[in-house]
Amino acid sequence: MNPGWTPEPGTPLNAEQVAALVDGTLEGETGQYFEHVRDLESATKSDVVFFRSGPNGIGRAPAQAELEAFQNTAAGLLLVDALTDASGRACIRVANPALAAAKLAQHWESYITETAMGIHPTAVVDKAAKVDISARIGPHCVIAAGAVIGAHANLVSGVHVGEGSRVGDACVLNPGVVLGPRVEMGQKCVVQANTVIGSAGFGYVWSGSEHVHMPQMGGVQIGERVEIGANSCIDAGTFQPTVIGDNCLLDNHVQIGHNSKLGRFVILCGKVGISGSVEIGDGAIFAGSSGAAGHNSIGPGAKIAVKAVVTSNVPAGATYAGNPAVDYGLHQRMQIMLRRMARKKK
Amino acid sequence: MNPGWTPEPGTPLNAEQVAALVDGTLEGETGQYFEHVRDLESATKSDVVFFRSGPNGIGRAPAQAELEAFQNTAAGLLLVDALTDASGRACIRVANPALAAAKLAQHWESYITETAMGIHPTAVVDKAAKVDISARIGPHCVIAAGAVIGAHANLVSGVHVGEGSRVGDACVLNPGVVLGPRVEMGQKCVVQANTVIGSAGFGYVWSGSEHVHMPQMGGVQIGERVEIGANSCIDAGTFQPTVIGDNCLLDNHVQIGHNSKLGRFVILCGKVGISGSVEIGDGAIFAGSSGAAGHNSIGPGAKIAVKAVVTSNVPAGATYAGNPAVDYGLHQRMQIMLRRMARKKK
Amino acid sequence: MNPGWTPEPGTPLNAEQVAALVDGTLEGETGQYFEHVRDLESATKSDVVFFRSGPNGIGRAPAQAELEAFQNTAAGLLLVDALTDASGRACIRVANPALAAAKLAQHWESYITETAMGIHPTAVVDKAAKVDISARIGPHCVIAAGAVIGAHANLVSGVHVGEGSRVGDACVLNPGVVLGPRVEMGQKCVVQANTVIGSAGFGYVWSGSEHVHMPQMGGVQIGERVEIGANSCIDAGTFQPTVIGDNCLLDNHVQIGHNSKLGRFVILCGKVGISGSVEIGDGAIFAGSSGAAGHNSIGPGAKIAVKAVVTSNVPAGATYAGNPAVDYGLHQRMQIMLRRMARKKK
Repeated sequence: MNPGWTPEPGTPLNAEQVAALVDGTLEGETGQYFEHVRDLESATKSDVVFFRSGPNGIGRAPAQAELEAFQNTAAGLLLVDALTDASGRACIRVANPALAAAKLAQHWESYITETAMGIHPTAVVDKAAKVDISARIGPHCVIAAGAVIGAHANLVSGVHVGEGSRVGDACVLNPGVVLGPRVEMGQKCVVQANTVIGSAGFGYVWSGSEHVHMPQMGGVQIGERVEIGANSCIDAGTFQPTVIGDNCLLDNHVQIGHNSKLGRFVILCGKVGISGSVEIGDGAIFAGSSGAAGHNSIGPGAKIAVKAVVTSNVPAGATYAGNPAVDYGLHQRMQIMLRRMARKKK
Repeated sequence: MNPGWTPEPGTPLNAEQVAALVDGTLEGETGQYFEHVRDLESATKSDVVFFRSGPNGIGRAPAQAELEAFQNTAAGLLLVDALTDASGRACIRVANPALAAAKLAQHWESYITETAMGIHPTAVVDKAAKVDISARIGPHCVIAAGAVIGAHANLVSGVHVGEGSRVGDACVLNPGVVLGPRVEMGQKCVVQANTVIGSAGFGYVWSGSEHVHMPQMGGVQIGERVEIGANSCIDAGTFQPTVIGDNCLLDNHVQIGHNSKLGRFVILCGKVGISGSVEIGDGAIFAGSSGAAGHNSIGPGAKIAVKAVVTSNVPAGATYAGNPAVDYGLHQRMQIMLRRMARKKK
Repeated sequence: MNPGWTPEPGTPLNAEQVAALVDGTLEGETGQYFEHVRDLESATKSDVVFFRSGPNGIGRAPAQAELEAFQNTAAGLLLVDALTDASGRACIRVANPALAAAKLAQHWESYITETAMGIHPTAVVDKAAKVDISARIGPHCVIAAGAVIGAHANLVSGVHVGEGSRVGDACVLNPGVVLGPRVEMGQKCVVQANTVIGSAGFGYVWSGSEHVHMPQMGGVQIGERVEIGANSCIDAGTFQPTVIGDNCLLDNHVQIGHNSKLGRFVILCGKVGISGSVEIGDGAIFAGSSGAAGHNSIGPGAKIAVKAVVTSNVPAGATYAGNPAVDYGLHQRMQIMLRRMARKKK
């Protein structure tokens, strides 16, 4: 294979082709063609598995059950790190077996996404919208005036793109995704089903007798390679856009209030709630169901524990927990002390 | 009526027919036909109500106001337990009046679901999908290649069924429900509107410069008679399916992470968040907005209190509360002690 | 301009027209026509900005940076309060500059909502539904039998209105909104995308071997001028409607359980979860991710802090925090005391 060789998506590959795709070194021989990445237990001879003997990305070494599963796997090809004893079986040495498995699985899984180009006859595309000829606009999509859909973008079905919004090249918008007006989305983003981006932010002015809605005119600006889960919500900003930086990962049921700004590589796990006008630095991580109250700033690399509530600024690199969130170590001592006292009283 | 007699759905019933349907004993006489189950206050002579003198399913006996409402109800027919004094009014004695009312209401409410068989002309069904002739595929539904829709299934409108997914007999998928690829759903399940099942799980491998998505190939396996609320999310597993056992009840805004496995009869109330790779035993109950962090195991029959966060394994039958969740009694003592101390300091 | 003058929506306005629209007094002169409300920093000469020198609605006076931004703004017209020194620039004096800005922005933003009347050819409207001739039924909407859609209502796209439901005059239902059967919605309500109203409530009766669903027949009753965010859920009541009073504001991911009743002007911020049979008095406010367990009563004007869990009745006007929620002052003392003790032990 030439350097940079890319196989036709979805096709079976032989061991040499797998090695080229994952940039690894083949040891042993096999004439088999492979079609799936599977787990150690369910793999058969036409499947590839991955295993590492050293600690994985979160520092965990394989348990005894995993070692045994690796010894007993019926997989025809192993993606392994340098330390692993492959016992003479056909294997490919790579620096990061999980990463190699992800790339390989992406090759085989691409078939699952329908790739027929063009606009489905049931889609409703305004004549003042621009859709790239290589994009796919699936059944029952609606594209409003002024919207622009980039090359190889895939709007699977029932997607609504609001007035003047832009969907970058190679984005995937799953069924039922709604983009309001003035949403800008960079290339290679993936949005899961029924997520709403660019809905009017929650901004009102009290008139003395009722709440008057302040139109939210800023839209949403989303960088490149952002992935957003299902049933999430990102509200439009008031005057300036709500911002999601490049390479952010947002899970399901995440809510981002108007005017908040996320840096790059921010991770928000399931059910995280970010109020309005919050700033989050690069690489910060919010664990599941945690959140931040409005107008706070969370420094780069900060970590917020599960169900914690940030109600003040969080320094770069700090780990916070609790409600209201405090330094993680302090929170642990508070909880342990309280438990001990309650047990004594018993 | 013959044993096993079933009336035409939605039709008015006389007292003898109601007694047959709920398997009860009629006392008193009435020539009235009935059309609705209502509450004691709003019922009229063509309505049926239910009442029990003993404690109900959660151990609560009727309050004075309820007793008075029962005395004063204008309902034409009463579903009552053995202890209730019906004061000579037409009544049907049953072991569980609420259960009888539910069955009777199901008979009359069935009309509300459109039952016209067949595929609506606006639906888009791939020629490689199989739809049972008795199923109903409503307006704007999309059925992908390889999908199978069972007998008497009802996809109300705007439902998307992904590639290779199977919807069992007599399932009801409400408007906007999205099933990703590889979702298997047993018979008689009900899914409320805009819920997403089989969306890609939140799994990534860090490459040294970015997060690479690990395709989630395991799909979701849902048992029989499972009911799922609105705007909920169940993510696809990585290699093996995420599993929801028979007879589970999931409320609105529930999130189930990839690779989690729920037993049978598990109840998850509104806004419960279950991370990835969590195991939940038969009959466990999570109260509203509670959740479990990844890779924990919750034993059969365990109860998790409102907004609690499970961060460790929970034994069978235990009740846990707090964040992090601990034994309920301990949590109560912690809170009471803390309150007392704070009040003293005041 | 005559009193009560209303400009054509979306049209540019000169300073005299702006003054008439916001009921203010013009000082200085300008021949400019204006087209947008913007923030101080990004405004140009064809834009209007707003500023107040006194404290705003939440008691905050302008910071130094804001004062400088006001001095330096390039905006061609200023909406200001009586105290502000406009330095001879063209300005309009009003009692509440933010309110004036909201009204003005509403005028210019109205263009964003498509206003073409009539029923889109891809919409499916039952012949037993009634749609006002001035309403707009967008692409792929479904209107069931017996539904009634009021004058100037706008169902943007992919909206489902269930059997017998009524949408009041001038309501806006954004893409993917689902109304179940028996939803009554007063005039001038706005519902953001993918929200579900009138889904079956979470009510079951244990039969001894399984949970039998009690049909939820009460529907939902929504007052006038109610605004509801994206991906929220309001469940149908069992016998009587779940009630949302006039002028309530509900943010994204809000859940309201069956049979709950909200008064008027209630505010529920993002991710608030209200269980079944909860009563909430006029003007009560729930901060983000807070909630109330079933069958509790929250008095008028009560305030519930971020992520608090109400598990008992809350008196009128009280402020509660924590889990379980207690008086806010007590909760603060509990947390501060605990932190001090933990710091000492360190």
